[in-house]
Amino acid sequence: MPSIKEQLSKKIEKIEQTIDFYLPEEKGLQKTVLSAMNYSVKAGGKRLRPMLMAETYEMFGGADSSVIEPFMAAIEMIHTYSLIHDDLPALDNDALRRGMPTAHIKFGEAMAILAGDALLNYAFETAAKAFDGTHKDIQTAKALQILTRKPGIYGMIGGQTVDVEQENKAISFDTLMYIHNNKTAALIECAMMIGAVLAGASEKEVSMIEQIANKVGIAFQIEDDILDVVSTSEEIGKPAGSDEKNGKNTYVLFKGIEQSKKDAEQYTREALQIFDELEYKNPFLRELLLYLVGRKN
Amino acid sequence: MPSIKEQLSKKIEKIEQTIDFYLPEEKGLQKTVLSAMNYSVKAGGKRLRPMLMAETYEMFGGADSSVIEPFMAAIEMIHTYSLIHDDLPALDNDALRRGMPTAHIKFGEAMAILAGDALLNYAFETAAKAFDGTHKDIQTAKALQILTRKPGIYGMIGGQTVDVEQENKAISFDTLMYIHNNKTAALIECAMMIGAVLAGASEKEVSMIEQIANKVGIAFQIEDDILDVVSTSEEIGKPAGSDEKNGKNTYVLFKGIEQSKKDAEQYTREALQIFDELEYKNPFLRELLLYLVGRKN
Repeated sequence: MPSIKEQLSKKIEKIEQTIDFYLPEEKGLQKTVLSAMNYSVKAGGKRLRPMLMAETYEMFGGADSSVIEPFMAAIEMIHTYSLIHDDLPALDNDALRRGMPTAHIKFGEAMAILAGDALLNYAFETAAKAFDGTHKDIQTAKALQILTRKPGIYGMIGGQTVDVEQENKAISFDTLMYIHNNKTAALIECAMMIGAVLAGASEKEVSMIEQIANKVGIAFQIEDDILDVVSTSEEIGKPAGSDEKNGKNTYVLFKGIEQSKKDAEQYTREALQIFDELEYKNPFLRELLLYLVGRKN
Repeated sequence: MPSIKEQLSKKIEKIEQTIDFYLPEEKGLQKTVLSAMNYSVKAGGKRLRPMLMAETYEMFGGADSSVIEPFMAAIEMIHTYSLIHDDLPALDNDALRRGMPTAHIKFGEAMAILAGDALLNYAFETAAKAFDGTHKDIQTAKALQILTRKPGIYGMIGGQTVDVEQENKAISFDTLMYIHNNKTAALIECAMMIGAVLAGASEKEVSMIEQIANKVGIAFQIEDDILDVVSTSEEIGKPAGSDEKNGKNTYVLFKGIEQSKKDAEQYTREALQIFDELEYKNPFLRELLLYLVGRKN
């Protein structure tokens, strides 16, 4: 059996073909914004969210690529728009992302703002292509409701807002957890819930998936906070210690590295416990969830 | 019979109640972004897009407020997000809008970027609330496809991109018309088409509505260009001549004031001609279209 890393790189390749298919052609008078969108989406990354979505969809027996693929592309567009705007001078002011110049460095600030807007808008435009006038549209509508809610003001943007305001301030652990729950976990929940909903999972199953995704998302963010402290710039593709430099409150700052590691493991254990209660199985997804929270292994 | 102005102010009041209903409550840790959203939406304006949507809906016999109202709020959110981001320092760098401080002046640049993102996202989240699991969802899905397409890269954002790039440059008249067609007319088309689609209008009728809205949108933009040249700051709520100051190419710059006025009238005449071919009638909407392109009367 191929290693998880080998399986991953094969799956990433396939997901990138799917995403590419839904990206706009770089032509027309508005070409610059289209290039900035594509540049940012193609800058790489683990394609974690579309992968979790596709694997969850498959686990619940979903098999219609014309429905799941627009949503896979859409969630990666939403993730990418959030990075472009997060990197802007008025926010984190980052010049590098995944070892490459960020959008505003490469295309200028105005175009980076517009490219972020464009990706957010185009994500919903792309997902709405899944409507086909059949009975499946009921599930597509539910999936679209999740795709609009989780990245929004009661999800990712909520987390981002509090994250921006807390820089260089003393905050409570509850506020930190609000940020991690919303800025990071909400989009993981979004990905896996949409996979479940589109495959026709029951409400109870979707709710279990939401809990699993939340715990995995938190564990993932704790690992990210740890990684920022212990890694070199080369390994993570951005200046190491940049969270600290930016005056960010991190999980490690509250709990220390050792306890943070333990907590990440605990969240992962809890996620897998619920995962194993599900009637449906996907051994690769199980392994992936484990792999995610120990990314250095 | 009350004058168009009296009817308008009554209708605006009702529309603002509808919009208010769908705006978020200003509470929670993410309160700042919610306040910035609400501040910007409540800053006033003619509520033209939701009004055109509602009147078109009514004209085609639509009578379900639970379906049309989320879309009315949504299009005003999209319009408002575009103004917030347009006003940012990296774009038009405007400190005043409708006589009030712009979002980035009042809430800072980071929060203005996030509030714009939040309004765009929340617009789709709000519209998606119209899905109710009945057969009407087919029309709601079609309306949502229009709501995602017209403000996007093949609509408003496309126009905005070219508008940003053309400042202080010589452009062709075709490029100017691309900007006006997309930056301004696309959202008017969006509003009226959604009204028609949600009321169950035929494809041919929706296409006629799209043409009417396009011509009205262009006439409206020409009037705006004229107004910027001939008005005082007080009348238009922003510094008069600010287009010229920003190095913007305007319709007036190409055609002169007199010809611009004639062209606006011509577009309006053509719009009304198609309007009068429709089987359905809405005398107020007809008067509104006329009023719009001669706003000083």
